[in-house]
This record gives sequence, structure tokens and C-alpha cells, in this order.
Amino acid sequence: MLASCDDQFMPRVSSDHLRARRRQILDGSRACFARYGYEGATVRRLEEATGLSRGAIFHHFKDKESLFLALAEDDAGRMADVVAEQGLVQVMRDLLSDPHGGGSVPGADWLGTRLEVSRRLRTDAEFRSRWAQRSEQLTAATRERLKRQHRSGNLRDDVDVDVLTSYLELVLEGLVSHLAMGFPADDMDPVLDLVEESVRRHRGGV
Amino acid sequence: MLASCDDQFMPRVSSDHLRARRRQILDGSRACFARYGYEGATVRRLEEATGLSRGAIFHHFKDKESLFLALAEDDAGRMADVVAEQGLVQVMRDLLSDPHGGGSVPGADWLGTRLEVSRRLRTDAEFRSRWAQRSEQLTAATRERLKRQHRSGNLRDDVDVDVLTSYLELVLEGLVSHLAMGFPADDMDPVLDLVEESVRRHRGGV
Repeated sequence: MLASCDDQFMPRVSSDHLRARRRQILDGSRACFARYGYEGATVRRLEEATGLSRGAIFHHFKDKESLFLALAEDDAGRMADVVAEQGLVQVMRDLLSDPHGGGSVPGADWLGTRLEVSRRLRTDAEFRSRWAQRSEQLTAATRERLKRQHRSGNLRDDVDVDVLTSYLELVLEGLVSHLAMGFPADDMDPVLDLVEESVRRHRGGV
Repeated sequence: MLASCDDQFMPRVSSDHLRARRRQILDGSRACFARYGYEGATVRRLEEATGLSRGAIFHHFKDKESLFLALAEDDAGRMADVVAEQGLVQVMRDLLSDPHGGGSVPGADWLGTRLEVSRRLRTDAEFRSRWAQRSEQLTAATRERLKRQHRSGNLRDDVDVDVLTSYLELVLEGLVSHLAMGFPADDMDPVLDLVEESVRRHRGGV
């Protein structure tokens, strides 16, 4: 009887448990990468930061690279949610107002870790492709949002939506780099106003 | 007589020689940083790449950090020359058309090294301030160019020149990051057209 009870409830309990465990690993290792960088986030430090053994960590994620990419995917997902409601420029405004991360946006410390792996991304095509796959949902959300804006007549219609998407993503890359390098960003609000305005339909435009 | 001859010519000969030696060190170490990254560019590798002893290298540059910053200054100077004639968007176009560097622009491999030191920049205020000082001439050249454009009526006049300067620099930072990560940039030309157009006076604008 007890055994059958276990059989019945085990899967659900176990899946909740797995999800919580996965979240615990992601949150701890994000803080660890942010603090020590990709190379500096050793297995021992990941254990400390997550409060779990390496066995438990690598039960959920194949290796450090997979863990890192899961975090990138996690970011992209959270930012895509903001994009769907408020657009990519709002993501940038959130990054400015909350450089240490929190709510919907990742912190500059963690984002900086992404820059540190740039050599790896440039020289390792498979890593780059896995990374690009993880970020694809942010691009998709941006493109969808711009298409909706276009349909409601808020977007300029002399430039292709794909170009506008690449443009906004390029500015985001610049902002991430700027913040990750610790440069002052208190004068960035009017810059983002300009970015926002440059994708909108020109008032009284030609 | 010979001694007095030496005395007379020594300074000039010596200064030419020093300049050539300095250039040899900069060129060799740029290639070395580009290939191995900041951390990977060990003193031994810097010796190999420059063909000079550590004694000779560090006679010209106090330490690896100073050498690295001299390279950043060298970049900023060359880019500032392009900016003065053709503007910062042209620097971006040159980066796109010549991602391995050469003429007037640094290559993506070397630029990527700048991303790798982002943690150091963020956490070490003195290093960041030395870096910012080295890049100041690029900002100054951009601002000057925009002011000239403004005077000749080519620039939009509803946004402050400082905001436009920060905007263009932000896009450059994004492009550097994009190229350094090895992401495809063959669709970037229309994006740069949009950037260029967004700082210009609107045709028939309000």
C-alpha cells in the first residue's frame, strides 16, 4: 500500500523537486559567475554558491558550459517577456535603472561574464551556435513586438522589420558592454529616447 | 671631434630609433594580444611576437597594462583620424568591411581582447580611468565632427551633440562586441544606414 502510494505520488513530487533544484542551481551559479567570471567560477565555488555537491549540479547540467548556456537562455526568456509587453528599449531602460539586476533584467556583473567568453564564442563555432540558439527567443520576441507595432501604425515603414530588430539588438549589445565595463551610464536616458524615436514612425515625416 | 659629432647627432638618431622600436613593440604585441587574449599574452609570448627581450619591451612600457593601454590609445588615435574626415559611422563601416583589421581600423581579434578585460575595467577604477583617458581623443574627434556637421546644417538640431556622440559611441561598442563574438555581420550595412540617418537632419522633418 505504501509502495503504491509512493508510486503514485513520486513522479509529481519528484518533478517539483527537480524544478526547484534546477532553480537553486541556476540562481547560485549566476551569482558565482557574476562574482568570479567564467574561468574563475570553479566547480568548488559553484558548489559553495549553490549549496549543492558537484554530483547534484552536474546531474542537472551536463557540464559548466551547459550550465552557463542555461543561464543565457534564462536571461533571454526573462527579457523576452519584457519585450513582449514593453519592447526592447524598455529592457535597456531596466538595465540602466537596475544595473545590479533583480526583477526582469540580469545584472551588469553577470552580463560582463558574457563578454569574457567572447574569445570562446568567436573561435568555437559550436559554442557560438549553442549560444545563438539560446538567445533566439529574444530576437523572436523583438521581431514580433516590432511587427505588432508596425500593424498598429507606430513603426516607421521605410525600413525592414529585420533591420530594426538587428539595430535594437546592436544597441543592446553596446549597452551591455558599456555597463559591464563599468562606464557611467547616467547620461544614457536621452540616448535611449533617440534610439526609441529612430524606430518609430516620424511625426510629420516624408 | 668624433665625440662632439656623436653628441650632436646622438639625440636625433636615438629618438628615431626609439620611435621605431616603440612601433615594433606595439605591432608585435597587438598581434600577440589578439591571438592569446590579455591573460594569455605572457611575457615570453610578447618577446616572441615582438622579437625583443623583456628588458627592451619594459624599457619602453612600464608593464603589460601600460603596453595594453598604449595599444588602446593607438587605436583611438587612428580611429579619430577617420572620424575627423568621415565620421564615426565610417569607422563602423571600415570595421565591417575589414574585420581582421589593417588600414585604419583595429581587427576584431584584437578588439575582442578589450572585452576580456571588462571585469578588470569594471572593478578597478584606476584602470578604468586610464582606459577612459586613452579613448578620450576618439570621443573628442566624434564631438568635433558632429559640431562641424551641425554648423553646416547636416545634423539634426533637436538633440544635443553630446547625446548624439554618446549614441554613436554606444552603437560602436555594440558593433565591437558583435564582431568580437564572431556573430555574422553581413546584414549590418542597412543597420548602419539607419544609424547614420538617425543623427542627420530629417529630410522635410518637423
